[in-house]
Amino acid sequence: MDLIEDGAILIKNGRIAFVGKTAAAPRAEADVKIDAKGKAALPGLINGHTHVPMTLFRGIAEDKPLQAWLTETIWPLELKLKPDDVYAGALLGCLEMIRSGTTCFADMYFHEEMVADAVRESGLRGVLAEGIFDIGNESLGKEMLSRSVNFAESFRGHAEGRISVMLGPHAAYTCSRDLLKEVHEKATGLNVGVHFHLAESRGMFSDLEKEYGISEVEFLNKIGFLTGHVLAAHCIDLSEDEMQIISERDVNVVHAPVANMKIGLGVARIRALMDLGVNVGLGTDGPASNNTLDMFETIKVAALLQKLDHHNPAVMTTYDALKMATLSGAKALRLERDVGTLEVGKRADLILIDLSKPHLKPMHNVYANIVYSAHGSDVDTVIVDGNILMENHQLKTLDEQEVMEKAEKAAHDLTSR
Amino acid sequence: MDLIEDGAILIKNGRIAFVGKTAAAPRAEADVKIDAKGKAALPGLINGHTHVPMTLFRGIAEDKPLQAWLTETIWPLELKLKPDDVYAGALLGCLEMIRSGTTCFADMYFHEEMVADAVRESGLRGVLAEGIFDIGNESLGKEMLSRSVNFAESFRGHAEGRISVMLGPHAAYTCSRDLLKEVHEKATGLNVGVHFHLAESRGMFSDLEKEYGISEVEFLNKIGFLTGHVLAAHCIDLSEDEMQIISERDVNVVHAPVANMKIGLGVARIRALMDLGVNVGLGTDGPASNNTLDMFETIKVAALLQKLDHHNPAVMTTYDALKMATLSGAKALRLERDVGTLEVGKRADLILIDLSKPHLKPMHNVYANIVYSAHGSDVDTVIVDGNILMENHQLKTLDEQEVMEKAEKAAHDLTSR
Repeated sequence: MDLIEDGAILIKNGRIAFVGKTAAAPRAEADVKIDAKGKAALPGLINGHTHVPMTLFRGIAEDKPLQAWLTETIWPLELKLKPDDVYAGALLGCLEMIRSGTTCFADMYFHEEMVADAVRESGLRGVLAEGIFDIGNESLGKEMLSRSVNFAESFRGHAEGRISVMLGPHAAYTCSRDLLKEVHEKATGLNVGVHFHLAESRGMFSDLEKEYGISEVEFLNKIGFLTGHVLAAHCIDLSEDEMQIISERDVNVVHAPVANMKIGLGVARIRALMDLGVNVGLGTDGPASNNTLDMFETIKVAALLQKLDHHNPAVMTTYDALKMATLSGAKALRLERDVGTLEVGKRADLILIDLSKPHLKPMHNVYANIVYSAHGSDVDTVIVDGNILMENHQLKTLDEQEVMEKAEKAAHDLTSR
Repeated sequence: MDLIEDGAILIKNGRIAFVGKTAAAPRAEADVKIDAKGKAALPGLINGHTHVPMTLFRGIAEDKPLQAWLTETIWPLELKLKPDDVYAGALLGCLEMIRSGTTCFADMYFHEEMVADAVRESGLRGVLAEGIFDIGNESLGKEMLSRSVNFAESFRGHAEGRISVMLGPHAAYTCSRDLLKEVHEKATGLNVGVHFHLAESRGMFSDLEKEYGISEVEFLNKIGFLTGHVLAAHCIDLSEDEMQIISERDVNVVHAPVANMKIGLGVARIRALMDLGVNVGLGTDGPASNNTLDMFETIKVAALLQKLDHHNPAVMTTYDALKMATLSGAKALRLERDVGTLEVGKRADLILIDLSKPHLKPMHNVYANIVYSAHGSDVDTVIVDGNILMENHQLKTLDEQEVMEKAEKAAHDLTSR
């Protein structure tokens, strides 16, 4: 992630054809030119773990512990969710992500085909998974697995290739051992990854820990679940042994510091994981537990939380933090050949940050200003696959008023149902 | 802080003359009308601890421990600071505060008369203190004390009463016992408060702790320093005994969670202090250690940090967090009769937040959306003393481009000196 001053980027057929000093740029007759004077171009941010349709639940149940939050508010509402609600919530999430500079996100939810529709319409890139759990109900598990597999088969490569797919087993405390094994088998057969919650809450796995006599990570490792492409969100409070397993199995960890703090769950040992060579991306988690999809906030809080946890500001640098939200995120989603950096040959997923803001002055260090001072609202232009989704704060693919009104209505209808 | 839907506010001679339902508002021929449909009006935010001219150092020394950050970068640069630099930095800080909804701030720095100039020009409200330390140099201490006293005498009530004053002894580890006693005596004589750093870093007081055999709080209490109006920033990792003293002495604590995390210092026990009846406000700290003056970020992080520290999301509610940045902040600055709530008779210091943003939809709970989802950039109108400082994002008192250019130049000149 070297800094190029007075740089230019040339995009051709959705890919980056040149990136470097303006003086060295090839003479090209561009169809579209964007003047980025006074702005910083960087790879579009990658949100490695979220549930975008949960925008509908933003702010609905505050200041509650995870168990109560899930069982008293979220799960009962989710039972009432219709595909159209999911679509309305997903579109609102896509709108928020474009406005705040996220170009690619990994999502797990229900009616995921509606999220795929929102991805197609918004122009974003998405790695989507239909959620799976059985919570003691075997036939439910089978049905959800079949839906998740069906989604993966149907939507792989959709939206001009901007959609890729995974299976989405919720967590080890909501999926039986047999279901997890079946998920893993299916994922292997389909050659797709699994996206799930790992070590989010000790409390919620403690019964299983008693039953199996081993930790969540050890349990999953033992049943062979941690092979292949694994995207594990959270990974809080892991022991040395667990971190060793994560490292050996090349599990991709997605750190969601804002949600982890907000639900009071704990601090993931990100520095230690990185030191073991683990690839760590960043995610916001769902907007009901964050309560935004702003990756700039997540980048800053990720850095702050490690500095605090280690009582050492050097432990997580500005560069580390930015890399987690770009290249490491891309790796976690197995998209690093296509996105995550601004390099010739990669897909043209990039954002421009307007640096002419009081809170971004003076400019001693552009990395520091982006990591510690910028907000999502400083992003003024967003490009995915070479298509402009937002230019100078003007949205090109979505009707902002309509999306907001539809989501407001869906949220209202849902809570009055 | 009750919610009034479809409300109206009437301002007369700089004070709130009516606040309530629009239907109940007196018929008044207003000179100026602001349509706040789709917006939330709330008391202007109060930044209880900062050093605004340090905008000049934003991003200049990242990822360093406090001691190195101070001794290697900040202090050497501060030695080179000229009054004009301080003025340029303070104006940039005022601009940033207006843009992000802060109407009042407590500041401690050098050449504080330049901060007073920035307050006068910008239209903000400020509680200002000239910094004092002696670090083993008695005559330096005397000189700084005399400057601080002189500043307080000269600027009390300036800028149509928007400026109030305090004395600014830096900390117990940078001021000798005799100096602290003199400061306290002078403050009592002038009937002003003291604004200082307390228990920010155990490491930096540990030598004194060995010498005196007691903690920083116990030491200050023993020499009689904690009587009168005391504004103590940070207060990290206090023991039960120390918290008891803070409570008994009615010390006002200002919590600066973002800077505390960023420098890796620790977690202030805010919930425990509140439970002891201690008044706790919020501050950003200087923009060199935060790196913004955005109080919305500080409000959110303050709530998150307590939830994390207690492993309990209920421990700090949305309401608690918002109150710290408004009414409790006002109390900490002894300005609660004039600001901190929207009440008839108080000065008209208020802000409007534009709720028509994707990240603020849907609106299940306006408090939650303000505390957990809003950013400073969502503030579109700022009023102080009944004067409009910003309306629909348009600045009324400052020339934004000029302020940014002047600060950029001052920062550049300073580092090249």
